[in-house]
Amino acid sequence: MTTSILRFVLVAILLSPFSAFAQKLPPPETKQLQGPQNPRLGFIIHGGAGVITRGSLTAEREKQYRDKLTAALLAGYKALQSGKSSLDAVEIAIRILEDDPFFNAGKGAVFTADGKNELDASIMDGKTLAAGAVAGLHHVKNPITLARAVMEKSPHVMMIGDGAEQFAKTQNIELVDEKYFWTQSRWDSLQKVLQQEKEKSTTPKPKGLSENLSELPYNKFGTVGAVALDKNGNLAAGTSTGGMTNKKFGRVGDAPIIGAGTYANNETCAVSATGWGEFFIRIGVARDICALIEYRALTIQRSADIVIHQKLQKLGGDGGIIGLDKFGNIAISFNSEGMYRAYIDASGKPVVQIYKD
Amino acid sequence: MTTSILRFVLVAILLSPFSAFAQKLPPPETKQLQGPQNPRLGFIIHGGAGVITRGSLTAEREKQYRDKLTAALLAGYKALQSGKSSLDAVEIAIRILEDDPFFNAGKGAVFTADGKNELDASIMDGKTLAAGAVAGLHHVKNPITLARAVMEKSPHVMMIGDGAEQFAKTQNIELVDEKYFWTQSRWDSLQKVLQQEKEKSTTPKPKGLSENLSELPYNKFGTVGAVALDKNGNLAAGTSTGGMTNKKFGRVGDAPIIGAGTYANNETCAVSATGWGEFFIRIGVARDICALIEYRALTIQRSADIVIHQKLQKLGGDGGIIGLDKFGNIAISFNSEGMYRAYIDASGKPVVQIYKD
Repeated sequence: MTTSILRFVLVAILLSPFSAFAQKLPPPETKQLQGPQNPRLGFIIHGGAGVITRGSLTAEREKQYRDKLTAALLAGYKALQSGKSSLDAVEIAIRILEDDPFFNAGKGAVFTADGKNELDASIMDGKTLAAGAVAGLHHVKNPITLARAVMEKSPHVMMIGDGAEQFAKTQNIELVDEKYFWTQSRWDSLQKVLQQEKEKSTTPKPKGLSENLSELPYNKFGTVGAVALDKNGNLAAGTSTGGMTNKKFGRVGDAPIIGAGTYANNETCAVSATGWGEFFIRIGVARDICALIEYRALTIQRSADIVIHQKLQKLGGDGGIIGLDKFGNIAISFNSEGMYRAYIDASGKPVVQIYKD
Repeated sequence: MTTSILRFVLVAILLSPFSAFAQKLPPPETKQLQGPQNPRLGFIIHGGAGVITRGSLTAEREKQYRDKLTAALLAGYKALQSGKSSLDAVEIAIRILEDDPFFNAGKGAVFTADGKNELDASIMDGKTLAAGAVAGLHHVKNPITLARAVMEKSPHVMMIGDGAEQFAKTQNIELVDEKYFWTQSRWDSLQKVLQQEKEKSTTPKPKGLSENLSELPYNKFGTVGAVALDKNGNLAAGTSTGGMTNKKFGRVGDAPIIGAGTYANNETCAVSATGWGEFFIRIGVARDICALIEYRALTIQRSADIVIHQKLQKLGGDGGIIGLDKFGNIAISFNSEGMYRAYIDASGKPVVQIYKD
């Protein structure tokens, strides 16, 4: 009885021309991208979002990025085609991106203010809602693999710092000397930011939450991520990052926060995010996109657009997401200048994009 | 046009007798509790959920718990009455619970497997969606105060480990020697659990995710939390914990995870959770309750019941939440035997409860 009344009220709200729901919807997306449908599979990866305008990359550098994204994409997709799980595909692709110095994760991690590399990652299984997350790592070559071990080999979801690395030892996960993560380009980025900071400190700082972040250098927030749908209809999502250049005080962004940077649920969707992590945590971006599907029955692209182009935009954050639903529908949404991304299209071909196309 | 079609489809779904929405709703709550309405204020605290059956506490011990909860409740409520913010009320009450050895937060933190105390906390401002979280602390007397400093005095949301404590120093936040957190009862609990573990290791372990957690001693997962609504209509939520007895590998639960243990948004609700943290992270409990209000226009009590009694229950987790919406409506929901909790009722009087009443 009460249920009927409640449904009536909800219906009345939805029918009302004053419905917030009616007013808040963005313009419909022009098309709904899909992954391969026979068999139904889905695979998308990202390599970070930020100020990537056309012309800011040399033709040679752009080709290198495209080649690396293609390699990671095809490796994950090949795994799905051979019958491996969505979790396998996500881990395989992210490991390739972690091993590449071009992306801010694993080998290519940026430096903290202390001149260290601090790594975070998370992964989630849409079938069981099992999840694993790690933060504040200094010696783990592939954080995504440790996140998966936390999920599968421990009763926990999240482990941080030295404790997480002790767990890595018990699982025979590859540890490396801190020097492994040293790269000239990331070191130069840190020096540049430190120099800017020094120059700024002689002039008065603007007040407000974003005072230290008001001038973000290119690629300051990098992340890599992947979402997959396997032949059994299982979704998975994963995200890995080296954090932000010059970060202090053990700062953690959204990458290892389940619900913010990563979420997967077979009933709704799988999402991996990249961008200004603080804003993604405050909104709970990945979980919120899934909630719009769960509670409002929106498409994944529309759900993503509402969260990225309305909620995130309103709060002043930037970045983007990649997502898949259980039907293989693809969502790509970002409000930054560009986002390194690649997906397998409906015909089974790889599509690699960097700018707003 | 497309909006109209979408609304029509949603209406059809809601009207359908086969609607999952219709089938999944729990029985309606018997009554909707409210905080004081003139002026409209709201204040609720919790001191953890778990196996707290009637008779498991001596009369004397029960009285002590009730007195301590009352003291923290009244201190926060008095702050609200005097015009202080919901953030102030949340911090004031949680500090009192953190300073009390009875609750698993601050002074009363349980011991890790290494015989250390590892503290986590988070706080969120419903007006701005600003948030602060800290994890893996060993020397911060009041983690909730550090979480608030992260929110208000840094551009970040989350800081962990030594880095977070370095930040505490820059903010003149009180640090204490690790010995401060040593209490006989928590030490005895650790020894008991270690002894049980030793005895268990000689017999084969059950397989599965929860193998190490299948026999949870009383109060193994404790947390304290508070949610408040101030005279300006601003909601806030905060949570603080000493983690779980015998925890290993830098494990982090839901208390410092924005969206899992803590969430606040003036447009929907403020929630603080307590319980088996891994499950709360996987569901994103606090954020999910707010999402049901945001996207389905349910009451806060009903939203909480769906998440705790259906979603959490289905996954095998236990614990509970306290919540408030912007109208001062109160939600209290738990699927454990008991939850230490206290709130100010519609007549402005304190109500303290421990068991399923």
